[in-house]
Amino acid sequence: MINSNVKRLWAEGHSVLNGWLSVASPFTAEIMAAQGYDALTIDIQHGLVGYETATTMLQAMRASGVTPMVRVPWLSPGDIMKALDAGAWGIICPMINNGEEARQLVSCVRYPPLGSRSFGPTRVTFAAGPDYGQHADSEVVCFAMIETAEAVEKIEEIVRTPGLDGIYIGPADLTLALTGRRYRTGFDREEPEIIDAIRHILDRAHAAGIRAGLHNGSPEYAARAVEWGFDLVTVSNDVQLLRGAAAASATRFRQLTGTAPQAKVQQGGY
Amino acid sequence: MINSNVKRLWAEGHSVLNGWLSVASPFTAEIMAAQGYDALTIDIQHGLVGYETATTMLQAMRASGVTPMVRVPWLSPGDIMKALDAGAWGIICPMINNGEEARQLVSCVRYPPLGSRSFGPTRVTFAAGPDYGQHADSEVVCFAMIETAEAVEKIEEIVRTPGLDGIYIGPADLTLALTGRRYRTGFDREEPEIIDAIRHILDRAHAAGIRAGLHNGSPEYAARAVEWGFDLVTVSNDVQLLRGAAAASATRFRQLTGTAPQAKVQQGGY
Amino acid sequence: MINSNVKRLWAEGHSVLNGWLSVASPFTAEIMAAQGYDALTIDIQHGLVGYETATTMLQAMRASGVTPMVRVPWLSPGDIMKALDAGAWGIICPMINNGEEARQLVSCVRYPPLGSRSFGPTRVTFAAGPDYGQHADSEVVCFAMIETAEAVEKIEEIVRTPGLDGIYIGPADLTLALTGRRYRTGFDREEPEIIDAIRHILDRAHAAGIRAGLHNGSPEYAARAVEWGFDLVTVSNDVQLLRGAAAASATRFRQLTGTAPQAKVQQGGY
Amino acid sequence: MINSNVKRLWAEGHSVLNGWLSVASPFTAEIMAAQGYDALTIDIQHGLVGYETATTMLQAMRASGVTPMVRVPWLSPGDIMKALDAGAWGIICPMINNGEEARQLVSCVRYPPLGSRSFGPTRVTFAAGPDYGQHADSEVVCFAMIETAEAVEKIEEIVRTPGLDGIYIGPADLTLALTGRRYRTGFDREEPEIIDAIRHILDRAHAAGIRAGLHNGSPEYAARAVEWGFDLVTVSNDVQLLRGAAAASATRFRQLTGTAPQAKVQQGGY
Amino acid sequence: MINSNVKRLWAEGHSVLNGWLSVASPFTAEIMAAQGYDALTIDIQHGLVGYETATTMLQAMRASGVTPMVRVPWLSPGDIMKALDAGAWGIICPMINNGEEARQLVSCVRYPPLGSRSFGPTRVTFAAGPDYGQHADSEVVCFAMIETAEAVEKIEEIVRTPGLDGIYIGPADLTLALTGRRYRTGFDREEPEIIDAIRHILDRAHAAGIRAGLHNGSPEYAARAVEWGFDLVTVSNDVQLLRGAAAASATRFRQLTGTAPQAKVQQGGY
Amino acid sequence: MINSNVKRLWAEGHSVLNGWLSVASPFTAEIMAAQGYDALTIDIQHGLVGYETATTMLQAMRASGVTPMVRVPWLSPGDIMKALDAGAWGIICPMINNGEEARQLVSCVRYPPLGSRSFGPTRVTFAAGPDYGQHADSEVVCFAMIETAEAVEKIEEIVRTPGLDGIYIGPADLTLALTGRRYRTGFDREEPEIIDAIRHILDRAHAAGIRAGLHNGSPEYAARAVEWGFDLVTVSNDVQLLRGAAAASATRFRQLTGTAPQAKVQQGGY
Repeated sequence: MINSNVKRLWAEGHSVLNGWLSVASPFTAEIMAAQGYDALTIDIQHGLVGYETATTMLQAMRASGVTPMVRVPWLSPGDIMKALDAGAWGIICPMINNGEEARQLVSCVRYPPLGSRSFGPTRVTFAAGPDYGQHADSEVVCFAMIETAEAVEKIEEIVRTPGLDGIYIGPADLTLALTGRRYRTGFDREEPEIIDAIRHILDRAHAAGIRAGLHNGSPEYAARAVEWGFDLVTVSNDVQLLRGAAAASATRFRQLTGTAPQAKVQQGGY
Repeated sequence: MINSNVKRLWAEGHSVLNGWLSVASPFTAEIMAAQGYDALTIDIQHGLVGYETATTMLQAMRASGVTPMVRVPWLSPGDIMKALDAGAWGIICPMINNGEEARQLVSCVRYPPLGSRSFGPTRVTFAAGPDYGQHADSEVVCFAMIETAEAVEKIEEIVRTPGLDGIYIGPADLTLALTGRRYRTGFDREEPEIIDAIRHILDRAHAAGIRAGLHNGSPEYAARAVEWGFDLVTVSNDVQLLRGAAAASATRFRQLTGTAPQAKVQQGGY
Repeated sequence: MINSNVKRLWAEGHSVLNGWLSVASPFTAEIMAAQGYDALTIDIQHGLVGYETATTMLQAMRASGVTPMVRVPWLSPGDIMKALDAGAWGIICPMINNGEEARQLVSCVRYPPLGSRSFGPTRVTFAAGPDYGQHADSEVVCFAMIETAEAVEKIEEIVRTPGLDGIYIGPADLTLALTGRRYRTGFDREEPEIIDAIRHILDRAHAAGIRAGLHNGSPEYAARAVEWGFDLVTVSNDVQLLRGAAAASATRFRQLTGTAPQAKVQQGGY
Repeated sequence: MINSNVKRLWAEGHSVLNGWLSVASPFTAEIMAAQGYDALTIDIQHGLVGYETATTMLQAMRASGVTPMVRVPWLSPGDIMKALDAGAWGIICPMINNGEEARQLVSCVRYPPLGSRSFGPTRVTFAAGPDYGQHADSEVVCFAMIETAEAVEKIEEIVRTPGLDGIYIGPADLTLALTGRRYRTGFDREEPEIIDAIRHILDRAHAAGIRAGLHNGSPEYAARAVEWGFDLVTVSNDVQLLRGAAAASATRFRQLTGTAPQAKVQQGGY
Repeated sequence: MINSNVKRLWAEGHSVLNGWLSVASPFTAEIMAAQGYDALTIDIQHGLVGYETATTMLQAMRASGVTPMVRVPWLSPGDIMKALDAGAWGIICPMINNGEEARQLVSCVRYPPLGSRSFGPTRVTFAAGPDYGQHADSEVVCFAMIETAEAVEKIEEIVRTPGLDGIYIGPADLTLALTGRRYRTGFDREEPEIIDAIRHILDRAHAAGIRAGLHNGSPEYAARAVEWGFDLVTVSNDVQLLRGAAAASATRFRQLTGTAPQAKVQQGGY
Repeated sequence: MINSNVKRLWAEGHSVLNGWLSVASPFTAEIMAAQGYDALTIDIQHGLVGYETATTMLQAMRASGVTPMVRVPWLSPGDIMKALDAGAWGIICPMINNGEEARQLVSCVRYPPLGSRSFGPTRVTFAAGPDYGQHADSEVVCFAMIETAEAVEKIEEIVRTPGLDGIYIGPADLTLALTGRRYRTGFDREEPEIIDAIRHILDRAHAAGIRAGLHNGSPEYAARAVEWGFDLVTVSNDVQLLRGAAAASATRFRQLTGTAPQAKVQQGGY
């Protein structure tokens, strides 16, 4: 049987700390799975991860007890069902704009008669047990990402979609969608209008009886989000954690020794 | 032509900041290459890296201007020569115990008549230029690791080996070798007898006119090592940087929200 | 020129024994290709297989004379055409619900003017010969899977689709679709209403002059299916064969020695 | 900041020499990147390349200064956005049939408000700089392939699509689409009616103020295309270059020695 | 802390059932790990497995509780230490001929002062805990394979090697070594002289206070070996299990339907 | 049974045309296998190829009828035996310096009683048949490379090694070894002293009743070598063939259009 931290924590009244994996490596996944997250999401959308490596990452996380989820590249039935068969216990789907798309998402995630997921849990049955088919529809978590102007407008029809567990807010895309190039890109928004939008979406989700998740860049902002009522918060990702720690270490050495790097430093990130 | 930061920095009187790659991923290599290191060493000994992924890591670092080196798994001609043909501009070889082994190492790294390296720079010629063969013997850096009791005893015959550029100290193994299980394992030793041993080896290297490198766990210790006179210092590695940053982030969130992880936390590391 | 066992056996009045590959490995593919199947299908839908490994599996099967086919993840033009260019001589497409979807499937599989397949047989031309383009439309086998309630209802418009070679029945999904959770999931159905549905679909395919395939869990059921008139039968897959054989071997040892396993046994499967 | 040879050469009044990568290997990509092309396109449609290997190929080309582009398998948002996040500075999308599809393509390639590309330039920011988001919409090149009868008919609505940089002609598919099986398949068409169609498309693109690219099999034909006014010309690909050179070498040896091959020779190609 | 079924079962007076992995796939490893073996050995000698895939197999087995071991390709320090750092809790080393080679083997497996293993448990520390260094020498199992004429002759000096946990008999090579081509190759020997040799080696191991393992082809023979007193028995491997099950399934279908395969059947195996 | 073109051509009085694979790709291997070579050697020494990819290359060549061989990285038992088990029907071993090393090489390649090869033909038995063990010693080809000053001096003891099929000359290393940096590096030597050395080695091999192979850069030189009496000649490799063809194509375009490349051209090669 699936034993999902996400559903259990929610049932117990807690919010979920989610980590984020953008590097295609079962070893970085195994490292991250040992650091205290409740759940870890493999990002097949913006991460550099393809399907087979995602599978080895799911295997490498299995022993940890961390709940594995996948952000799929798009509302594409093949990608969603393959992620589930490989062992994802939650799906985060980007760019859901309206009720019709939300219904398609749910249909990909749920078996008949709720949806149209094809039956063939080839690997997940080894991790979740032979009764996977009986429990999958109630245990697998299904999130629709809210990050476009249309989605904000049609939030009510999205959150009322039967079988949807929650919405998940991507603040970078949401900001771009609502305000264009006015503000910097990125997470942890401080602009009042963006915060209002975020809290409005949260409110609509809760009013409809479903959960809400938020993508964050720092533990501080994530803790604020928990106070606002978010049920799941993501904090940073492996790329930014590695980048930040390496840059801090090298910079500290440069300061202590009064030296400068030979190669051009272009740290990446956005 | 090879354009090595290592040799150039040394010629200019500077020490070299080296980073360390233990994750088998061209993307983590590319991330690390953007953070301000002068050189980056792919660890094929204790890192989880095999030969073909090491090659993609060398490719992913090429644009950065960071000097790529490889720590080979052992004093094994096949492994050493394959790393060089793939594009390593420096070799760090573990567990060199005496002059004879140091001579074998140099023989693997240098073309005839200095050594017995076989000619076939299949990839490195694309990165280093068609005149690679003319410059390789003078530009490729060759380090012998000093980390056993025998090596400390026979340090003089090691550092006098013609064609050897430097010695490199692994403090974890050296401590284990010299003092058994008396002290904790790891880097950044504070025990006076270990510090004495480290500085003695450094002294013998410099007396013989060659360079000395030290493996460190923190920028602070590395800066101390530079003050002692070390010519190259390694600070941490990708695994520890990611592990540390993720643990700090999750712990910070737990403190701010007063929550505890569901999965068992076993951060790894030593 | 393509030399397909499938088309030849059908022309000679025989049914086809098809094997099934769910493990992403060219070696298990090569092993399976030596065991006496007429055709082998790489399952990119529920199998743990991505595109590049599927290509190495196609290469590893080439010497055997077994006809290689691919079950694609979904009715997605990119996935279907890439499988064909890589060397699949047959396509099994899941979840075809109606005539319109069947037409889209055929369009992906056939070159103009029959369909809209893009021309670029990059690898298949090495296996099938330089005249591949002349023969592909007549030799490549195109199966639509019938496994939903809508498909059963609209079976007539599906089987009449020009350019479709056959339909392929997935009994697990079909049972779920027609009867919900009433019965166990899986193959080799014994419920009269499901057998009726299966034989009805077979009958409609034959009436329209096209072929019919059935997915089976055992050689016994497959032999029954051949008696019913099925033109192609799949028996088990690599995952279930390995799982069954290993479990039988370990269990036999336990019985002989009167011992019990230390690790928890959770054999997987459904 | 992105520094694209394509846009710069066009601004300077030059045409672009594009190479083509169909082999899934970062090393063949690195070899090709050293031979004098202005741009190199990884073919994820007909090439044997999956997403993760494409990423290593983008990394392996980064140091060369050659502009990397990707031909995606289909008009699929996930595939297009993943290619861009991984570092493609241009997208060539096959089988664009009309203005609506061209608009969808542009929408996938451009950030809001122009399009609906999701923000998360995970790797490309390391290659293109932290201001990637500011420049991507103006620097990334977006080509719609014209290769169907419908596209020729609706060429006017395609070339007038805001945000589209150019059209790209695939002569093999175009010939198949316009004339069926009348002529041989392949590039470098000499049939007057095909040349007329090609030049008509070129003319319509230029009239609309956008660029035009042509796929060619030889430098001679590509030079002719430049004379006709094409702004970007692709010449051959890695598969055909390797195949042709190996066949010529082996054949030359056979002629010189008067011997014949033991294995059956089936060179592949079309 | 390492929690090895092997040492615990021995301490409790039981013999160990070991499985064998020759396919390079984390999924077949995960499947095998769910079938009731106490331990599973990845065969990097005769299996088609390289170092990085072996690592993903170790990760995929971690959740099962099965003890992972590695048969290394040869008495090569780099290969042995890399397998241990990656997470092998036991080493089986082929072709140990005498006491000197046995001492070298132990030296590679044990940390100073017992041996010369280099310290850097990069991945194993995540699976075995932060105190891995304290327990590795007592918990990691070290087997010397006895399979040459010289080894039989010098069995006494091998079994008396301090730090060696056991010997492991490879009956195929042993038969070849002792009797040349007189008998068929393979396991499960019935020739009295070979059985005598096997039981003599077992006797010498037990007399020296160490353990003995035997490679077997069937559960029946393995059960006999347990009766003789063997402490660890391997039964078959993934290749033979898959091959045997597939061949049996296809043959059964052929018998039931009275048909014959189209492709040539060459089942492999020896 | 093994069916080696090499042994058969020699028996029929012909010389063998060998191709060379330095790119780690089963597809380039499959392409090369279709161009008319009698044998193809995967270069695991200077090529960018690791063990698992070499295995997929062996699989991809199987259907062609071309005889697959492997150049191993060094005289290392693990590497040699793994290449044979994976399906190499010939071994070329670099840097054999004397009779003792030649004997070690033969010992790795032959089963007892001739040698000490360990029995476990895991994959090769699928390609070569179940009687592989009976024929391997007579059919597998074993070449010792002659490329050092010591080897030239001790040529007589090398060529007289029982079980050695032939010697193989690497002219680049041989020139470096005999004349240092006096001449350019590379193949196709025209210096009389080098030609004398090459023909002397050939003569000594033939006098001892074994075969001789030569590495060449062009079909013209290879044809000369055949006239001298060489039994096997290698012509160029995949890297140089691709590089040369791409450079010629791009250069031709530049000449025709009077343009120059934007990126810096550094073609690689030596």
